[in-house]
Amino acid sequence: VKTVLVSTGGGRYDVVVGHSLLAGLGAAQARRVHGGQVVVCVDDNVAPLYLEAVTGSLRTEGLSVSQIVIPAGESQKSLARAEELYGILYDRGLHRSDTVVALGGGVIGDLVGFVAATFQRGVRLVQVPTTLLAQVDASVGGKVAVDFRGAKNYVGTFYQPHLVAADLDVLASLPPRELRSGAAEAAKHGLLGGGSLLRRVERFASAGATASAVTEALVAGNVAYKAAIVGEDEREVSGRRAVLNLGHTAGHAIEAATGFARFTHGEGVGLGLRCALWLSQRLTGLSAEAVARAQALLDGVGAPGRLTGVTADEVIALIARDKKASDKGVGYVLLEELGRPVVGVSVPPELEREAVEWLLTR
Amino acid sequence: VKTVLVSTGGGRYDVVVGHSLLAGLGAAQARRVHGGQVVVCVDDNVAPLYLEAVTGSLRTEGLSVSQIVIPAGESQKSLARAEELYGILYDRGLHRSDTVVALGGGVIGDLVGFVAATFQRGVRLVQVPTTLLAQVDASVGGKVAVDFRGAKNYVGTFYQPHLVAADLDVLASLPPRELRSGAAEAAKHGLLGGGSLLRRVERFASAGATASAVTEALVAGNVAYKAAIVGEDEREVSGRRAVLNLGHTAGHAIEAATGFARFTHGEGVGLGLRCALWLSQRLTGLSAEAVARAQALLDGVGAPGRLTGVTADEVIALIARDKKASDKGVGYVLLEELGRPVVGVSVPPELEREAVEWLLTR
Repeated sequence: VKTVLVSTGGGRYDVVVGHSLLAGLGAAQARRVHGGQVVVCVDDNVAPLYLEAVTGSLRTEGLSVSQIVIPAGESQKSLARAEELYGILYDRGLHRSDTVVALGGGVIGDLVGFVAATFQRGVRLVQVPTTLLAQVDASVGGKVAVDFRGAKNYVGTFYQPHLVAADLDVLASLPPRELRSGAAEAAKHGLLGGGSLLRRVERFASAGATASAVTEALVAGNVAYKAAIVGEDEREVSGRRAVLNLGHTAGHAIEAATGFARFTHGEGVGLGLRCALWLSQRLTGLSAEAVARAQALLDGVGAPGRLTGVTADEVIALIARDKKASDKGVGYVLLEELGRPVVGVSVPPELEREAVEWLLTR
Repeated sequence: VKTVLVSTGGGRYDVVVGHSLLAGLGAAQARRVHGGQVVVCVDDNVAPLYLEAVTGSLRTEGLSVSQIVIPAGESQKSLARAEELYGILYDRGLHRSDTVVALGGGVIGDLVGFVAATFQRGVRLVQVPTTLLAQVDASVGGKVAVDFRGAKNYVGTFYQPHLVAADLDVLASLPPRELRSGAAEAAKHGLLGGGSLLRRVERFASAGATASAVTEALVAGNVAYKAAIVGEDEREVSGRRAVLNLGHTAGHAIEAATGFARFTHGEGVGLGLRCALWLSQRLTGLSAEAVARAQALLDGVGAPGRLTGVTADEVIALIARDKKASDKGVGYVLLEELGRPVVGVSVPPELEREAVEWLLTR
């Protein structure tokens, strides 16, 4: 078991990474989070697999445990579902010192996290991420939100959990495509962090990037990298946290171009990272060797090699809208070297188009 | 003009207190908050009085200004109204670097503040409080919320504004009962802070506690006191912020006993403060002289002298529910001396009943 301490202005908490953690969740929670009532929120994909282990473990510690099971899927990240959850918590008499457990992937973490952040201005929150994406990325850093009118995460806040428990055993039940989605974010962290973190992600790729290749050191290394960034800039004020957008400018546009239907988030990020590498070679002096090494890593974690099913015009229009929606001056995140990102790089329109066309035709 | 700097983990901002500030709001805002689009939110009581002055002042600075006018009243603090506001901000293409101005009293500050805090995880927020209650208390400290199923402020968060502009001239249009509501919170701060703050509130009371008796020093002194507390304990974690609940345990129960229909918040707090003083004399050694001085201050600011229209049983049942809803160990806030509060005092049930009965029969 590895434990990473996350420390931000909004709170200090442990991220515990290891095997067989679900069975020990009650004990881990009782050591860190005091409070009588616990409500476990889960979707109907994850509930049959892990809900009983979690509630049983919490009951063993003498906690009063109940559960809420909602349908699976991104469409659940709505204000309507949040309001329904408020009502259930209200009916169960949840107090500020009680605890909500978010057992699931990014959708559950975002939705339940938002509800926990805002119910009575914040109850205790324990994140139990069950996807690789949530373990290496989404469950750490305090971003919680619901979607609004099809715009992702448009209503939300920053709220740090009181404990994150990432059990590697649960990854065995993930569909390969979902596993690759998390692997793409791990690759992003490797490219940003460089050094031993990059080598760790490369070893994971060499081992086939399967669930059984995920190690405590891999997940804990990703969490520690993200924790360091978030610790410096919890609310995306200073720009430090902006490095985490590496690959996300084009990646988000690629996802949006097909209404979030064709590509997973990880696939969008994988393609966006390839695009950022291409631009980094031309604009920020990333060496050809470094680009080749990074593209090989993306191959290794199963990122798509090529963009298909959309046009360059569609992607470019969506990149423009995304940039317009940001604060002025925030442009692309690119790399000078592996492990050395630069933020706010402005990319000439013709080069941007060339990059997207390269992605379509390589 | 007096300026108080509020500094918390969630942000640093100025509270500007003075006369004729509405006309200068554009300039004050342009110096502190950068960003092109500004949406001013206001209720239909305040709009005819001050909306034009505010939007005109902002337009003079070259800002792109629009407005949202909603009906007045506590019933507007709902998730449904928040969702409608999200939709309007979405339609107007508001970005994270744009600004929402909350022009009004506590309802507007809480509702619009909550929307600003959560739309895109936080846009810039300027509070322009138009009631004495909002100027000396509600607009400072970052508590924002809507009500849920009749429970006050049950869905909310902590979000610090980027600027608060308290224009004393707007107080002239307040109904006397609304002015007294703010005066009760000022009295609370005086009793908590003691010393020069207490003497300042006493001078305000001696001058008749009218709108024209409100000085920059009075409001700025209240803001500085609250800012110091909130700076130490933004999110009510350490218990330091709990001192601000002086008078609120019985006060909230008194308000709730008539469904928030009979007493204003300030009247509830005034009665709750009288109750806390009575208990302080018996439990925490507050001298008879200090109690007499404090009760005279409450008389001076126009707090109700006596509780009417409810029974002791009703109030006591609601106090019990309120205490149960809090974290364990948080009891009454009482005073050892004027200016020296103690938190978490447990009050024997028979003494609590005696205090409420005293309030009913004095």
